[in-house]
Parts: sequence; structure tokens; C-alpha cells
Amino acid sequence: MSHKNHIMKAFKTAYKGPPDLNKLLSVAVGLFILTLSFAKNAMAQEKNQMIRLAKIEVDPSQLEKYNAVLKEQMTTAVRMEPGVLTYYAVADKNDPSNITILEIYADSAAYKSHIETPHFKKYKETVKDMVKSLKLIDVTLIGSAKKPGM
Amino acid sequence: MSHKNHIMKAFKTAYKGPPDLNKLLSVAVGLFILTLSFAKNAMAQEKNQMIRLAKIEVDPSQLEKYNAVLKEQMTTAVRMEPGVLTYYAVADKNDPSNITILEIYADSAAYKSHIETPHFKKYKETVKDMVKSLKLIDVTLIGSAKKPGM
Repeated sequence: MSHKNHIMKAFKTAYKGPPDLNKLLSVAVGLFILTLSFAKNAMAQEKNQMIRLAKIEVDPSQLEKYNAVLKEQMTTAVRMEPGVLTYYAVADKNDPSNITILEIYADSAAYKSHIETPHFKKYKETVKDMVKSLKLIDVTLIGSAKKPGM
Repeated sequence: MSHKNHIMKAFKTAYKGPPDLNKLLSVAVGLFILTLSFAKNAMAQEKNQMIRLAKIEVDPSQLEKYNAVLKEQMTTAVRMEPGVLTYYAVADKNDPSNITILEIYADSAAYKSHIETPHFKKYKETVKDMVKSLKLIDVTLIGSAKKPGM
């Protein structure tokens, strides 16, 4: 915080108004620096994210069971692991056994820890005879936009 | 709300405790019914959603420009259109000109209205010589899980 103190001192030296205004100025400068540092952190966090598309072809006769197990894996991982951020799993309308999952982890360490958890290992073991093919595509985020609460 | 009143009356008849407990019970029953009706609405809303994967191959020499125009389209649509809910645009790490967009609209009417907006038409016109191929895949949501605020 020495950076912040320096800037506040500089402002105080330049500005010789009444003390209450001085205080206000200190608070405003503090808030400005805090905002900048939050924004910087948020950007750094986003930069480290590990994002992936998983393309999965499921045995059609076991699709219902597979979807249930997948949903359980997703909700458990997001609830229990701090670094598992987002999952969207969708199925082609024309062929619901063709599944695409968008996966967002805080960073690659979070992913490495994820695949060692009991719930992920249980998922892998349960679905091993349901999954006909699996393709993992590493991607980067171009951008996202969401309504609040979505 | 006549449904709610009926249920509350039935509870009051069955339960002859002191008046303050009666009041508490009314509030609890009211909240329970309200929660049920919210959950029902949320499920109905999700059922109507139109979800799509757009697979776009972009001219590599125009990729930077395309990504900027795409981001502008996504943020404008989510900000201005009540029925445009979610966009995630990602690029293959091994070939950033291969782009996948997950699109969620409130319903098909929201999508139809979206493609008639000036900002979408402007986007389409701007990118028409940047996009080498476009494949639209209608999908259904198997499930999603997200950290709060993601």
C-alpha cells in the first residue's frame, strides 16, 4: 500500500483546501486505486483460466443414465472445488448422444487437482462403458456476455 | 392468490395455537407457495430456451478485427435485448480461426427479434467477408453449474 500512500501525499500537497475536503480526496483516491487493483486482479485471473470443449459421443442406449451422472459430476465439482468455475453441457437436438461440454477452471492447477478428486474418479469409472469417444479441445475465451444472474 | 388463501385457511382451521403463531404459520405457508411458484416459473423459462452452438471459421488474416466485432455484437445484444441471455465465444488454441459460440436466448421469439436488430444486421454486414464458414447446431441443455457470480 506504499504506492497508495505516496499518491495520496502528492494529492494532499497539491491541494490545500479545508481538512474535510482533504479527507474526501484521500478516500476518493483510495477507492480509485482499489478499483484499479480489483480490475487488474480480475483480468489476471481470467488470463490464467483453463477453458476446454469436451466432445463426447455416448452410447444412445445409456444416454439417460450418462446425463444424470454427468450432471451430478458437474454440480459436485462446482460446489466442492474452489477452482472449478463453470460447466455448460449441451446435446445436439438432432442427435442427443452427441454432447459438448464447455468447462472453465481457474487455472491448470485447479484442473489437475479436479481430476484427482474422488467424485471425478467415480464419474470416470461409472461412464467408462457409456462413452464411445471423447475429444478434448483446449480453447481460449474470445469473450462472454451474460444477463445478471445467468 | 385464492389458492394461497384457501391453503392458509385450511391450516388456520387445523391449527388452534396462539394468534402470533397463527400469523407465523400464514407467512411460512405464503413463502412456501411463493417459492414453489418461482421454481415452476424458472423451470418453464429454461424449457423454452433456444440454445445453439455456432461454429465459425474465420479468415486468419482478419481474425483480430473479427473478434473485436463479435465481442461488440455480444455485449450490445445482451445489454439491449431482454431475451438475449448468454454468449460464450471461444477459439481453438491450436487454430484460433476456429471459433465456437454458445448462445442462449429466452425463446425462439427472442432469437427471431435478435436477428432483426440494427446491431445484429451491422455485425452480419461487417463480417460477411471475414467468415469462411458458419455451422449452426441447435442443442438442448443437459445441465449447467457455475460458481456464484460467474
